[in-house]
Amino acid sequence: MKCRVGLVQMPVTDDKAANLRRARQEIDRAAAAGAELVVLPEMFCVPYETARFPDYAEATGGEAQEMLSAAACENHVWLIGGSICEVEDGRYYNTCYIYDDAGRFVAKHRKAHLFDIDIKGGQYFKESDILSPGQSLTVFESPWGNIGVGICFDIRFADMAAAMVDAGARLLIYPAAFNMSTGPRHWELLFRARANDGQCFAVGCAPARNTAASYVSWAHSIVADPWGRVQRDLGTEAVTEVVTLDLDEIDSVRAQIPLGH
Amino acid sequence: MKCRVGLVQMPVTDDKAANLRRARQEIDRAAAAGAELVVLPEMFCVPYETARFPDYAEATGGEAQEMLSAAACENHVWLIGGSICEVEDGRYYNTCYIYDDAGRFVAKHRKAHLFDIDIKGGQYFKESDILSPGQSLTVFESPWGNIGVGICFDIRFADMAAAMVDAGARLLIYPAAFNMSTGPRHWELLFRARANDGQCFAVGCAPARNTAASYVSWAHSIVADPWGRVQRDLGTEAVTEVVTLDLDEIDSVRAQIPLGH
Repeated sequence: MKCRVGLVQMPVTDDKAANLRRARQEIDRAAAAGAELVVLPEMFCVPYETARFPDYAEATGGEAQEMLSAAACENHVWLIGGSICEVEDGRYYNTCYIYDDAGRFVAKHRKAHLFDIDIKGGQYFKESDILSPGQSLTVFESPWGNIGVGICFDIRFADMAAAMVDAGARLLIYPAAFNMSTGPRHWELLFRARANDGQCFAVGCAPARNTAASYVSWAHSIVADPWGRVQRDLGTEAVTEVVTLDLDEIDSVRAQIPLGH
Repeated sequence: MKCRVGLVQMPVTDDKAANLRRARQEIDRAAAAGAELVVLPEMFCVPYETARFPDYAEATGGEAQEMLSAAACENHVWLIGGSICEVEDGRYYNTCYIYDDAGRFVAKHRKAHLFDIDIKGGQYFKESDILSPGQSLTVFESPWGNIGVGICFDIRFADMAAAMVDAGARLLIYPAAFNMSTGPRHWELLFRARANDGQCFAVGCAPARNTAASYVSWAHSIVADPWGRVQRDLGTEAVTEVVTLDLDEIDSVRAQIPLGH
């Protein structure tokens, strides 16, 4: 079985409405190119600055969610809606909304591991100043088998990926936005490692690089295969591309090197 | 704090006595070059052919263990004694014996995950035909903090490495012998991933490559650092080399990117 995954490596501006329009255009474009499942980047309609998250936040039923549901339905694609800033009961979350190809809400994932780092001479970022962490693992059924979703820094935690694989996930999908410190060090390594350890596909979708932003995305949206190889790396420019995943490769690798998955 | 690790990437023949003499020479050489801790390869005195393991097996107090203890004591080095075929109560194990710098037995690790693979057009190997698996995690105290030891295929299992890190391991050391199928695909990726996930050092020591052997070692003895970088790769030839590990880097990385270790 194959799955044609559309990766939307789009630029993110500080104009939420413009970001939503762009995301919708790119989802349409991916579907037109044959995508069955489309993935957006982390915070695809929100500038990645913690202090500004509340200005862009929305509750259940907000405009980003409406756009995503309609885009999934009208294009007949499954949609892993990157992430947005969600507000509920006065708390803010970094949340991914997921819709099926009829536009029905399937699941949401709240980023469980908030990004608090302080690299010497590099990136400082403290998401926990503003956000609350999610408490749940997100694995759901799809036409391509179970899919697990994490957000960005969640991929640093091997136990979370292993738990998703134990729950039957054959694709691990991470909307993400690594930066110019963590990107070159860890982006490719982490996707390859999670794919290799889980003998599954690991997919990352990031915003295009914008060196004028306060937080510069590493970009390099990626597909790693069950052998732990990079199947595709989208580089740094804004691009929407459809990548075909051969899911039979999962079973083949697991038969050749049995790890108990 | 630094730790000078001697990696013995030696050839392995089917002459056990000759292998023991060579190992002893290389331990002496590493110590003379300043090593404080010396690591030997998996099955360093046994040809890597399952059917022949029993011919080379030894019980507690056997000649390989005597050599290792004496070499540690006389050179005043800690010794991670690669592995040998151990026999106990009619069962065979792939076992690493560990000695301190007075030659005292510290711990032994029995390979927990036996190597049963069947790569299409590549390596077939079934260790479980002959060997029994170990049931224990091996983490012990040393002058450089806790050290965890696994053997070869054990490194495929992220949960085992994580359990060793949770038990305080700052170095993960794997005597190993990947082959020409798994080596190019996974050797470097696995050491980098374990080091990066544990924010610790991951060290692999393999036999030198011998293309005339029935099982050809990938070699490439390796040190991966807490950033997940390859600090040193010894290539394929027979060589003994001392690599200096800066253990303060562990604390530095853990402070910069807190993962809870």
